[in-house]
Amino acid sequence: MATHEAGALHAAGHAPAWLLVPDDVNDLLQPLWPVTAYKDADGVLQVGGLPVTEIAAQVGTPAYVIDEADFRGRATIMLGEFQEAFAAPPLAGADVYYAAKALITLGIARWLVEDGLRVDVASGGELAILVRAGMPGERIALHGNNKADRDIETALQAGVGRIMIDSLPEINQVAGIAGRLGVKAKVMLRCSIGVEAHTHEYIATSHEDQKFGLSVADGAGLEAVRRVLARPELELLGVHSHIGSQIFDTNAFALAIHRLVALTATIAHEYGHACPELGLGGGFGVAYTTGHDPLTPRQTAQGMAAAVAKECQAVGIAAPRVSVEPGRAIAAPAGITLYTVGVTKEVSLGGGFQRLYIAVDGGMSDNIRTALYGADYSATLASRRSEAPPRLARIVGQHCESGDIVVKDEYMPADITAGDLVAVPVTGAYCRSMSSNYNAALRPPVVAVKDGAIRTLVRRETLEDLLATDLG
Amino acid sequence: MATHEAGALHAAGHAPAWLLVPDDVNDLLQPLWPVTAYKDADGVLQVGGLPVTEIAAQVGTPAYVIDEADFRGRATIMLGEFQEAFAAPPLAGADVYYAAKALITLGIARWLVEDGLRVDVASGGELAILVRAGMPGERIALHGNNKADRDIETALQAGVGRIMIDSLPEINQVAGIAGRLGVKAKVMLRCSIGVEAHTHEYIATSHEDQKFGLSVADGAGLEAVRRVLARPELELLGVHSHIGSQIFDTNAFALAIHRLVALTATIAHEYGHACPELGLGGGFGVAYTTGHDPLTPRQTAQGMAAAVAKECQAVGIAAPRVSVEPGRAIAAPAGITLYTVGVTKEVSLGGGFQRLYIAVDGGMSDNIRTALYGADYSATLASRRSEAPPRLARIVGQHCESGDIVVKDEYMPADITAGDLVAVPVTGAYCRSMSSNYNAALRPPVVAVKDGAIRTLVRRETLEDLLATDLG
Repeated sequence: MATHEAGALHAAGHAPAWLLVPDDVNDLLQPLWPVTAYKDADGVLQVGGLPVTEIAAQVGTPAYVIDEADFRGRATIMLGEFQEAFAAPPLAGADVYYAAKALITLGIARWLVEDGLRVDVASGGELAILVRAGMPGERIALHGNNKADRDIETALQAGVGRIMIDSLPEINQVAGIAGRLGVKAKVMLRCSIGVEAHTHEYIATSHEDQKFGLSVADGAGLEAVRRVLARPELELLGVHSHIGSQIFDTNAFALAIHRLVALTATIAHEYGHACPELGLGGGFGVAYTTGHDPLTPRQTAQGMAAAVAKECQAVGIAAPRVSVEPGRAIAAPAGITLYTVGVTKEVSLGGGFQRLYIAVDGGMSDNIRTALYGADYSATLASRRSEAPPRLARIVGQHCESGDIVVKDEYMPADITAGDLVAVPVTGAYCRSMSSNYNAALRPPVVAVKDGAIRTLVRRETLEDLLATDLG
Repeated sequence: MATHEAGALHAAGHAPAWLLVPDDVNDLLQPLWPVTAYKDADGVLQVGGLPVTEIAAQVGTPAYVIDEADFRGRATIMLGEFQEAFAAPPLAGADVYYAAKALITLGIARWLVEDGLRVDVASGGELAILVRAGMPGERIALHGNNKADRDIETALQAGVGRIMIDSLPEINQVAGIAGRLGVKAKVMLRCSIGVEAHTHEYIATSHEDQKFGLSVADGAGLEAVRRVLARPELELLGVHSHIGSQIFDTNAFALAIHRLVALTATIAHEYGHACPELGLGGGFGVAYTTGHDPLTPRQTAQGMAAAVAKECQAVGIAAPRVSVEPGRAIAAPAGITLYTVGVTKEVSLGGGFQRLYIAVDGGMSDNIRTALYGADYSATLASRRSEAPPRLARIVGQHCESGDIVVKDEYMPADITAGDLVAVPVTGAYCRSMSSNYNAALRPPVVAVKDGAIRTLVRRETLEDLLATDLG
């Protein structure tokens, strides 16, 4: 079965049910690609006003390519939708904190500064990058389940807008450092509220078996409230929860809002403290493949706004100002990874079926998500048009490990060959930020493209970079 | 149930069956620790003749600590056992190639040079490090499923002892480059032979759905033989297979040897070419926890030697020289990671059970194996003796991700607290080599300890290192 019919591959369990056989293997699955991406008449992928062949010629492959208009557009739209949905009384406004862990460079940090975003950092390193890029301290929130004293000091000296307290011992830690520095630290309490959301499902329990947060069910949440209110060095802004990632509907957020608003009401009624803020975390899903159907920012914002208004009314408190922390939803769809094809190989699956293995010049060092989370991705032949039929393919890297897979399942043209460029969409988040030097791989550059110009945000590593810390 | 009885935790499914409740939580589980490791009378872990408190004071935490005597001892013992087992006719000797992907620095490369090891590299970067460290080319084997022209060129110019051909297109690629350089390239054929081994189980099939190798079942293996023999620029040393990782018995190797020797005999009988070599790959298991029971190097070597002798006799060929490629079995047990404890937290599991979460100053950026493979690890309180009872604990990192777990299940003293040092054994392989800067984490140093002296092989990264390639 040289070109094995696609339906038979699905029936035999070699192709996942969500994977569609393309009518034309050259077509872009448009929802997956950055806003400026399209294929020209020769089938060459264009992004940011440039053919990817030109980008590859200038910066080489593999390369992370960020569509600046897409990134900044998504950030601005997210901010605008939340501002609008929460603008009118009884609601009290909303702030959008970009989650820096998804992808951060000095250049991207400056976009966030210019575009009015706030930012959530999860470490002293991320904090230092944002401060260096000129992000005003009051627009930064410091997260972390195990903060070092020096990171809290740096944050308070930078005047961060809020520190997210994650455990009881952290209360005295932050209060002590704030007292020493002579500042009042604005804090929120990260609570575990028994809502775990992922994709279209969520679990509602009383307990969560994970490292983050102050358990409300255990009483640690209210104990933290008492302790924070007792420390004059601390100002309690409110409570916060983060319920998961890749969330595709608002039901789990509605339950989280119900529980957080109830907690906020308890703080108001029992402790006489009106929290001015409410932190709803991130986790807004994106489409990595056509198997995913995420909410729009408007749907997310309006769904949250309705839930906050309803729950606050039900318990008789004024609605606090809301904050959300999208990272993936802004960065992921704005980025693609360009690879050059090397070896292709037909691998027999038995029963007359074959899988086309396409090896590219990167792999798990630049995208660990496939191996780490079993994540699905899509891909396209990016450097030319093909008239060949679609073949079920697996795009693999060049690392010395059989789990080194970039795209587990995709239909690619049967004539794909060495030297072709392949582009993988939705790689803007958690690829560069989790990249490694496994197999002494040199990490790819991060380039921004816009209006036909390439700007290198992070250059490609060299062997000298790799050995810079090796003392021999 | 404040100190929840351990048996009940197991019965309730909160502790894995293999995890033993320690009689004394201070005791080292000796098979897991480097050869020089012990605890002194105060309960302080000693390694390389130094208390870990001294190591931490000098280089900070987290830190990768390599027991030089253990690493070099394992390498030398592995080499010696294989040399001895394969020394006598009808066998024809054996070579040990250390798999550099497990852990390589310039300093470690020099140990391998001095100790007579050979080395298997899987990329141009690894090759460059070995060459720079002075490893003679003839002692290097170049692996890789998707080799770049420049890597093959570099390898041939360095006079590598063998290039492992992984696909049909690579034959002309290597031959072409060898011809251009005027050298004869020694090659082995990496074959997929339908044996997949892992831990105590293996699968024997005709096909393998993975990226590596030339399928013998498909005929690609013999087609490759024909093509290599037809190219005067190439010298066929033999066939090779790598059947998996963390292998704990010799049955799967015996089946692999059966299939590889049959292939070698076919090459001799049908093509008149006596292959002087046979490549058996790596995958020798190590004990990460007491749930693992690996073979000794002697058992592995003698088991392989017996199988090679028997199979060669059965098909009437002279035994080729054998090569093996251990990486983990040499590096993993020689390394420990030192962390400092920060936040500790009791997390309710329901039913009256609690889990003690211990957050340390590292995590998935310095050890991705727990999250990536669901790997199990052990740990000990390393800086003092404790009289507190054992508690079921989970050691987590400080990254902004709930899957950021270092040690999923271990009994730790109930009084463990901020500032204590925790040591995790068997982290010498695939921790440093797969490390990342996730959450802008600065990667830890790699230090060798021996006879009371610390030698920094790789220094800790700084924020300036992290931003060295960021062009702003």
